Amino acid sequence: MVTPALIIQKKRDGKELTRQEIHSFIKGISTGEVADYQATAFLMAVYFQGMSLDETVALTEAMLESGEKYDLSHIPGPKVDKHSTGGVGDKVSLILAPLAASCGLKVPMMSGRGLGHTGGTLDKLESISGFNVRLSRKEMESVLAEVGCVMIGQSETIVPADKKLYALRDVTGTVECIPLIVASILSKKVAEGTEGLVLDVKVGNGAFMKSKNEAKQLAKTLTQVAKKMGLKCRAVLTNMNQPLGYAVGNSLEVLESIEVLRNERCRDIAVIQQSAADITSCDLKELTVQLCAHMLDIAGVVKNLNEGRKLAHSKILDGSAWKVFQELVKIQGGSVEEVLEPKKLRLAPITTTWKAKKRGFITKMDTEAFGRILVELGGGRKKASDSVDPGVGLVFHKKLGASVKTGDPIATVYAQKKEPLEDLEKLFQQAVEVSKARKPVSKLIFETMG
Amino acid sequence: MVTPALIIQKKRDGKELTRQEIHSFIKGISTGEVADYQATAFLMAVYFQGMSLDETVALTEAMLESGEKYDLSHIPGPKVDKHSTGGVGDKVSLILAPLAASCGLKVPMMSGRGLGHTGGTLDKLESISGFNVRLSRKEMESVLAEVGCVMIGQSETIVPADKKLYALRDVTGTVECIPLIVASILSKKVAEGTEGLVLDVKVGNGAFMKSKNEAKQLAKTLTQVAKKMGLKCRAVLTNMNQPLGYAVGNSLEVLESIEVLRNERCRDIAVIQQSAADITSCDLKELTVQLCAHMLDIAGVVKNLNEGRKLAHSKILDGSAWKVFQELVKIQGGSVEEVLEPKKLRLAPITTTWKAKKRGFITKMDTEAFGRILVELGGGRKKASDSVDPGVGLVFHKKLGASVKTGDPIATVYAQKKEPLEDLEKLFQQAVEVSKARKPVSKLIFETMG
Repeated sequence: MVTPALIIQKKRDGKELTRQEIHSFIKGISTGEVADYQATAFLMAVYFQGMSLDETVALTEAMLESGEKYDLSHIPGPKVDKHSTGGVGDKVSLILAPLAASCGLKVPMMSGRGLGHTGGTLDKLESISGFNVRLSRKEMESVLAEVGCVMIGQSETIVPADKKLYALRDVTGTVECIPLIVASILSKKVAEGTEGLVLDVKVGNGAFMKSKNEAKQLAKTLTQVAKKMGLKCRAVLTNMNQPLGYAVGNSLEVLESIEVLRNERCRDIAVIQQSAADITSCDLKELTVQLCAHMLDIAGVVKNLNEGRKLAHSKILDGSAWKVFQELVKIQGGSVEEVLEPKKLRLAPITTTWKAKKRGFITKMDTEAFGRILVELGGGRKKASDSVDPGVGLVFHKKLGASVKTGDPIATVYAQKKEPLEDLEKLFQQAVEVSKARKPVSKLIFETMG
Repeated sequence: MVTPALIIQKKRDGKELTRQEIHSFIKGISTGEVADYQATAFLMAVYFQGMSLDETVALTEAMLESGEKYDLSHIPGPKVDKHSTGGVGDKVSLILAPLAASCGLKVPMMSGRGLGHTGGTLDKLESISGFNVRLSRKEMESVLAEVGCVMIGQSETIVPADKKLYALRDVTGTVECIPLIVASILSKKVAEGTEGLVLDVKVGNGAFMKSKNEAKQLAKTLTQVAKKMGLKCRAVLTNMNQPLGYAVGNSLEVLESIEVLRNERCRDIAVIQQSAADITSCDLKELTVQLCAHMLDIAGVVKNLNEGRKLAHSKILDGSAWKVFQELVKIQGGSVEEVLEPKKLRLAPITTTWKAKKRGFITKMDTEAFGRILVELGGGRKKASDSVDPGVGLVFHKKLGASVKTGDPIATVYAQKKEPLEDLEKLFQQAVEVSKARKPVSKLIFETMG
């Protein structure tokens, strides 16, 4: 048997590891035969040398084998999930899971929590009083069968190797590494028992991938590895150069999701073609419908993407998706009262408005800065053990492309305390560029792969 | 304060670390503030990104600060040491320390043990019964003052960070990395209290550095950093494409060293110019005299290198070096009887001769293979905790450039058991290339730096 040190050296020297070497190394991390200090040296060597497609598949398989694998085949209907690489104001899952379920899919959605500047679906759900994201396998399966979707946190029994590896990557500068990201995402998705997967790969100044090239490489590797792992898969590269929708913050994002599900904002999806500036949920609705169409398309439920869009759109219009959402909240212990009267959602008591300092057009938004402002308000996490305040956040009145006059409100902030707001406004103003000349606003969806 | 994770990321991204960042990281490894799994990720990042001269100096200083620093200024005379990067049959230290002492230097020599295919000075010394390489700081200073040289193992109190880092490097593929090698060597040399240092940087198929470019880079960095650390320093690039001298194995190497010190072999140093093939200690003697001359030169004891050579040579001829060696053995508890009658040195009972299979010239020797054969015989270590058999080894009758007839003895092997010899002879024969055409033998000393 090849020793861990020799496997590290082989990767260090840029040679391709065998399937067996990768399996024994990853297994060794669980058993302790490979020390943590060897694991991190290996991860750093992978950071520099990368991994071939075969190596990445082997890594994904090896991680998958570290834990339990759910089998959902006894539940009728195509099982399709969505995964986003993370952004600011990305509440798509909250709308998409019930929407796709209302279109006939089964959506077994395991999500994560917010960390750093990006938010997490679990934190958003938990801003609904009582919503329980910790279901047993049995409970999860029963909700999925009954409602058509289920939204829970990562089970402890699924891919324990990922938990360990992620904790090590987080403190050793090896998070931003495509094969490691791919294996982490896909091992969990395969383990949760889904058959199909639509990937929303965010690109832009609010995403982990700042450049289109990086994001394309990630999307390509994700779809290639997913297919080798037997998943139906499609990746969509989407714009994260401004927040998605108008709300950033947990309760506020639930509120916006409910508005979209009730079709209260941006009723006419064509409006987005004209100006996304003022009717700010349009991008959110459009992206959700498009992702839903892809889920329906890869599942073979519709003939083509356009049929998928039509079906998804109709399920918003006729209230089906909204109904599924209420059922989901109810069955997972959440307060239906809050959902029906969103004013009852917990919001922070202090609000103030941040205004345009000059006349012009909004030409740039440093989206990551908004995520960091949310963290400073208490609505996100600096480290994984931090707790999250559901009530704080930002509501945008203007987004990219909008014209503003001096004094026009750009965003309303919800906070628990007044003290930090002065400093945070400085950060905010630096993050919003107002120019005399209008600049074209880049597309919402850049590219589709797989 | 910058977190360990951010320091790792900065190095990963190829940015130059500040002195303060390096110091806090290395200190953190000792205090536990930096976890071992962060240390190894950092080491791998350094492997890929390298370190600037300033960074390497800071690393050397930080490692030095992890332990005690000897001050030998109360002992009169220039303190000069020699360090070799390790080779096969390299018993230079055993001759050089007493030789340099007999020329008026003080040689505070801290050496290591053999590991892998290279031998270690401590193992060689310990093949003399009773020789004690573990002296307290006080004992070390008193031997140095009295004899002019002292030969001991690494003190536990000196550069403890190196012990920890080396153990981590050894199992994570980060041994072969110039800034890490340089900091490891020089932090210990500065800590032992020497003022001057001559570095024997081995290059060739029996050395760690196989290529001249790598070895030059190492030698250059070593001399640059040494000077910044306040050491008088010179580096000599020497040939390790065949064993040095004729003996490989602990007792056998002591025996050969004694012969050189007694001037019994290769009396005429000019002979090496004609043919190194049959009088096989000539290269050993020549290199030792040359290194001694460099030590005398950097200490300012002689006017130039040539004066140094003359002085060193005279101290072999008049028996002074041999006398110092006997004093050293005696004061460090070794058996003077064995040294005076080297037949009493412990040698393995089974000897056999490996012979030329065809007529021709020896044109290549895979020197690392000889080191591995010694390990297989029990005379070296696969891992640091292995014990070493002093009696086994190889005595070469022919070296590079020699003409051989079929059946001519090339080497005599000393072993404890007959069983492995057949397989080992196969390895040996593969390692010795006999060709019809003579090839030029490359120089013993390639280059001098600093």
